[in-house]
Amino acid sequence: MKKLSNKVGICRLQLLLLVLCLPLMSIGQEVGSMERLVSPEIADDNTVTFRIKAPKAEKVVLSGNWMPSVPIEGGMGMTRQTVELTKDENGVWSITVGPLEPELYGYTFVVDDVNTLDTANLMVARDGTFRTENVLYIPGAASELYWAKTGPKGTVHKIWYESPTLELTRRMFVYTPPGYEDSNENYPVLYLLHGGGGDEEAWSTLGVANHILDNLINSGKAEPMIVVMTNGNPTQAAAITVSPKIKPSDQPAGGMANMLFEKSLVNDVIPYVESHFQVKANKENRALTGLSMGGLQTLNTSFENPELFDYIGVMSMGFADLSRFGIEVDHSKRGKQIDALKAADPELYWIACGTDDFLYQSVVDMRNELDKHDFEYTYRESTGGHTWSNWRIYLSEFAPMLFK
Amino acid sequence: MKKLSNKVGICRLQLLLLVLCLPLMSIGQEVGSMERLVSPEIADDNTVTFRIKAPKAEKVVLSGNWMPSVPIEGGMGMTRQTVELTKDENGVWSITVGPLEPELYGYTFVVDDVNTLDTANLMVARDGTFRTENVLYIPGAASELYWAKTGPKGTVHKIWYESPTLELTRRMFVYTPPGYEDSNENYPVLYLLHGGGGDEEAWSTLGVANHILDNLINSGKAEPMIVVMTNGNPTQAAAITVSPKIKPSDQPAGGMANMLFEKSLVNDVIPYVESHFQVKANKENRALTGLSMGGLQTLNTSFENPELFDYIGVMSMGFADLSRFGIEVDHSKRGKQIDALKAADPELYWIACGTDDFLYQSVVDMRNELDKHDFEYTYRESTGGHTWSNWRIYLSEFAPMLFK
Repeated sequence: MKKLSNKVGICRLQLLLLVLCLPLMSIGQEVGSMERLVSPEIADDNTVTFRIKAPKAEKVVLSGNWMPSVPIEGGMGMTRQTVELTKDENGVWSITVGPLEPELYGYTFVVDDVNTLDTANLMVARDGTFRTENVLYIPGAASELYWAKTGPKGTVHKIWYESPTLELTRRMFVYTPPGYEDSNENYPVLYLLHGGGGDEEAWSTLGVANHILDNLINSGKAEPMIVVMTNGNPTQAAAITVSPKIKPSDQPAGGMANMLFEKSLVNDVIPYVESHFQVKANKENRALTGLSMGGLQTLNTSFENPELFDYIGVMSMGFADLSRFGIEVDHSKRGKQIDALKAADPELYWIACGTDDFLYQSVVDMRNELDKHDFEYTYRESTGGHTWSNWRIYLSEFAPMLFK
Repeated sequence: MKKLSNKVGICRLQLLLLVLCLPLMSIGQEVGSMERLVSPEIADDNTVTFRIKAPKAEKVVLSGNWMPSVPIEGGMGMTRQTVELTKDENGVWSITVGPLEPELYGYTFVVDDVNTLDTANLMVARDGTFRTENVLYIPGAASELYWAKTGPKGTVHKIWYESPTLELTRRMFVYTPPGYEDSNENYPVLYLLHGGGGDEEAWSTLGVANHILDNLINSGKAEPMIVVMTNGNPTQAAAITVSPKIKPSDQPAGGMANMLFEKSLVNDVIPYVESHFQVKANKENRALTGLSMGGLQTLNTSFENPELFDYIGVMSMGFADLSRFGIEVDHSKRGKQIDALKAADPELYWIACGTDDFLYQSVVDMRNELDKHDFEYTYRESTGGHTWSNWRIYLSEFAPMLFK
């Protein structure tokens, strides 16, 4: 009997599926030998083994977002550390890493300097306009909110709505909580904004917002609520996945400067949601939060509309100087805006940032400015940086504080 | 000024996004030079240029599903032809192919025998348990139904429902047509089943069913209808994308034999849809179709429940001998089933198959058997084989015949 040294296997159904789909098979799949590598393989102790077949390669490395960042030569920024795989006699490269902490990770291989997905792992996520990566889920207490557990589930509605402000029919995702379909009750609403480079798909893919909300609601930690996930790029109708004509370069250079998204959120999105869903349409039952670019949009929207939201969360963004990108803040206006928002007395103003975040200083500056005005806020400082790992944690902590 | 020979470019917003996301950058991206390859690049004449940077590679080929299939050495099946790219002095490999016919294509690179996605192209689709590929959309008359055009759009609901039959909380996608949210009318329902290896995500990704329906309905070619896209693997709660614990090997060897999915469709799915959506709940307003394994499930369900559907479509499946996979058909029963379905007199029984489909003979056998019983059906024979290209065409032709 052949030794399955590379963790290969085939079951009867796979054989049938193979037969039903043979004409579709692409090159590179091992049809002849019926073998399929197992990668990644998570052991009971949370060590993880990665494998890729590349007989001709001279060097294969693994780039995972759990690895520390290191400066890039030339000073343009940071990149990830990598680890080298080793090759066996069949041309299969492998490495065992960890144990890894429970979390949702992204990784790719780099085969002779070419970024390469793990074809044995069908869990793939697009990180906005930046890249596509494989997804690795390590179960455990710290990540237990991040996947579809047993129990009631909410619905994610992929909706198109009219935006007169932007002169577009646009797409957004609306999460309704477990039981919504069978209820006559009205629900509060959280508006949840993504960051630069992202789109309306970000929070339900990398952000797993629907799983986080399902699990928080099912365990009684968060109130049942509707969550609205918009596309924050004002010239984009929808993510690139539905409109091949949407290229990254179609995103507006002034997308953050012109306040157009913020206007469409207030004038188009909120009225649509409040007229098409079972919604408690008042300040006490509206929350707004966003990360990075979405944090800036949260700041802008809540300063311009102090009476709209009782719960405001700013993630990984502060009073940053973005003037070199053409984004000017009217500082004479800001003091009055802070006072107006203070007068509106929101139930919660929450600020979250990681100590390694490159925007950390902008958050310090914002807090200093708010302090000058005796503006009340709650500050949550985490470890780590400008990462989805932090944004998932922030959502997991922010949602339970809402509508109580 | 530097000659942009490799079609690289960066705009101001991309620079800003880069700055906002630098800590996330992964290795392999050309942060230092701020360059991003353009690939694929579609010219006005529909020739397409593909590019990948792989300085150390000895051979790079392109594998696209528009290329003909060729037998694999050893006789185990077919694979695709490939074409070789050529390398320039910067290590960028490229090739221009076509012109290509308007269509939605899948492709990958193979770099020194390693399947590699085009990292410059963020449009990626998972083909069930088989692979992940890049998507290439060539616009034109033949593919005009396949993307989100201007105009009203339906909603795709990602729903979880209880399946007592399968003892699972399961996921399905339900498409509601443009205007549904603002209407008090009831709508007919099409139940749309995927093939072996697929799941509930197949018809709205590779099948672009929501775009096809939006465009057919907006142009008046199809009646407004609800479309229900289930997961046909009876031990799966949901696609692997939401449940990392779902592995391909968790699919049941007997999934097609045990009729469990068919029972859950009738006992769980249809009652859920008819009690939670604005539905015309009668035979005249129910349609069922599926491809390959879903075609078998369509045959089984309509034979077992002759009074349930007035519109039945069987795509790329016939009376196939699947006994070597443990799937036994009771032939003594079949004649009676055909007669019972004939007595129920469905409005449309539609059979579609490609001349190159490996199941073509099973469709010939089915038609012969139906003919023996003077059973009325419409037969649509296309060119091509067992492909999503054909299944998109079949849906585009089947939907306009329904509910009229």
